Amino acid sequence: MDVRELVGQARQGRPRAVARLISLVENAVENAENAAQAGVSAGGDRAASAASSRALREAMAELATGGARPRPARVIGLTGSPGVGKSTSTGMLIRAFRRRGSTVGVLAVDPSSPFTGGALLGDRVRMQDHATDPGVFIRSMSSRGHLGGLAWATPQALRVLEAAGCDVILVETVGVGQAEVEIARLADTTVVILAPGMGDGVQAAKAGILEVADVLVVNKADRDGVQTTVRELRNMTGLVETPWRPPIVTTVASKGEGADDLLAALDKHQAYLEESGEARRRRLARARDEIEAIALAQLRSRFAVLHGDRLDALAERLLGAETDPYAAADDLIAALR
Amino acid sequence: MDVRELVGQARQGRPRAVARLISLVENAVENAENAAQAGVSAGGDRAASAASSRALREAMAELATGGARPRPARVIGLTGSPGVGKSTSTGMLIRAFRRRGSTVGVLAVDPSSPFTGGALLGDRVRMQDHATDPGVFIRSMSSRGHLGGLAWATPQALRVLEAAGCDVILVETVGVGQAEVEIARLADTTVVILAPGMGDGVQAAKAGILEVADVLVVNKADRDGVQTTVRELRNMTGLVETPWRPPIVTTVASKGEGADDLLAALDKHQAYLEESGEARRRRLARARDEIEAIALAQLRSRFAVLHGDRLDALAERLLGAETDPYAAADDLIAALR
Repeated sequence: MDVRELVGQARQGRPRAVARLISLVENAVENAENAAQAGVSAGGDRAASAASSRALREAMAELATGGARPRPARVIGLTGSPGVGKSTSTGMLIRAFRRRGSTVGVLAVDPSSPFTGGALLGDRVRMQDHATDPGVFIRSMSSRGHLGGLAWATPQALRVLEAAGCDVILVETVGVGQAEVEIARLADTTVVILAPGMGDGVQAAKAGILEVADVLVVNKADRDGVQTTVRELRNMTGLVETPWRPPIVTTVASKGEGADDLLAALDKHQAYLEESGEARRRRLARARDEIEAIALAQLRSRFAVLHGDRLDALAERLLGAETDPYAAADDLIAALR
Repeated sequence: MDVRELVGQARQGRPRAVARLISLVENAVENAENAAQAGVSAGGDRAASAASSRALREAMAELATGGARPRPARVIGLTGSPGVGKSTSTGMLIRAFRRRGSTVGVLAVDPSSPFTGGALLGDRVRMQDHATDPGVFIRSMSSRGHLGGLAWATPQALRVLEAAGCDVILVETVGVGQAEVEIARLADTTVVILAPGMGDGVQAAKAGILEVADVLVVNKADRDGVQTTVRELRNMTGLVETPWRPPIVTTVASKGEGADDLLAALDKHQAYLEESGEARRRRLARARDEIEAIALAQLRSRFAVLHGDRLDALAERLLGAETDPYAAADDLIAALR
């Protein structure tokens, strides 16, 4: 099928077309990574990989310029440590937004293995509840290999879901840390989920994810220690001077408790974003980051594919104390000309 | 003090010179990040930042080419989820290597906040036990901002510790996820630490860190469930076809139990690395990654500092559906010429 037709079908909200376009994004990340790792790859693979990048490029051009939507999708990021109930919370939000009549896209970004490409299926299985609802698109995207991959793949996947007519897109990232902070920058509203106990508030503070939170959720609020965690969070968020102080919502996502409070907090943040001009600022930053990430990925792939031998030779010379890393980097950059 | 003198003092193992050189690396990451975030920064800042990058560049040239060491330092990465006892295990390994007479460097990579630059001090405080031992260098490095930062800062910090005469360098990364996988690629031997229970094995598999493990440690082995975790891990590592099957070591790091077993596993892996030629292959890959990461960081900084206005304009056009992300990236790359 040609790309224009695929994009047309995605615009009509056809799930298979949406899935195929997001696969195109995923494969491009993987191809770029393989090329960067392996240096100059076999001719056949390279031809297939070039064709797939070309298709993605065409699809993005078509999606980005062919008829903008009147209103951009609302992107909500959900993140937190393993075990706090991110998928259950995502499920609760899907139901809450569906009750309002919004169409919902979900992008679950799995930090799956960079080596085997494997991802455990538990989280996906739980999403099957919504498999027959035509107003819900769920796609899991693995972030294989290089960290930069997510930075350019995620906005492209968001663009596909937006074109498919999603009013709300939930981006779920597993784990805590730097990658999640980067993803958070892509969302309009970032929800950080914690569970009572486990010194989770302190861990979140250490990992730097409290500062990216627009809304804080303490899930599993039927457990002991929920008030301590809320108090801890209130103290920590109280320290920061900011025009928006993240509200703290308690939920029991497995029972759907707190869904309305969470929705109200999300709406309040959305209103703040629009009134303060922050919404546009975030969208611009996202566009800027996406362009930069694509440019850097292209340059990285040129280093590997066109200049892999030079890079190997420079690495040998660096190990042999015949050059230093900055001089070697200059040499590599000079190869771009 | 001039850079050559500073490097000379670091080579003599003077702790202050080592600390100052690693600060130079850290500041360079931060300056690069600030420049990338803020676009063209104020003239004064820019001048200071340029001077500090120049000093780092000079230091690395001096360190990389001025007199190679007869034998490279052995780099051991330690990673795992929060709470499994990474710092305690690091402490146990410091003592074990010191008993052998090896000098030990420790680089604790904190995923500290990208916004406030703050890091909690708990882990550092625990390291104070070794503060008066001249055979131990401990330095904590925060990985502010962009993920790429760690990729070029860590090898440079390792180079400083190596020049200071460290026989062994322990790199401790907090958290699990993609950043840790990248750091693991920098080590000769990567130790993944888990604790019994909490489905930690499954979480580690999900986060893709099992595949990077050369040695697996189940710490807190005096707790319930240790045999279940060991069995779980044995099943999972048994699935992979590989010339090196990661041994599973149980420890109680807080009591120093299992130190000898861990050391034996590390030595066995070191012997495997040397015999198989994998040692040199990893060092070459590390050199290659460092050069590439520096080149990409330089290009990213050029985008921000020299072409920030163009990037802003492209982002506006992308939001306005007047361009697509790939065309915009091409335009940005063309600005490099």
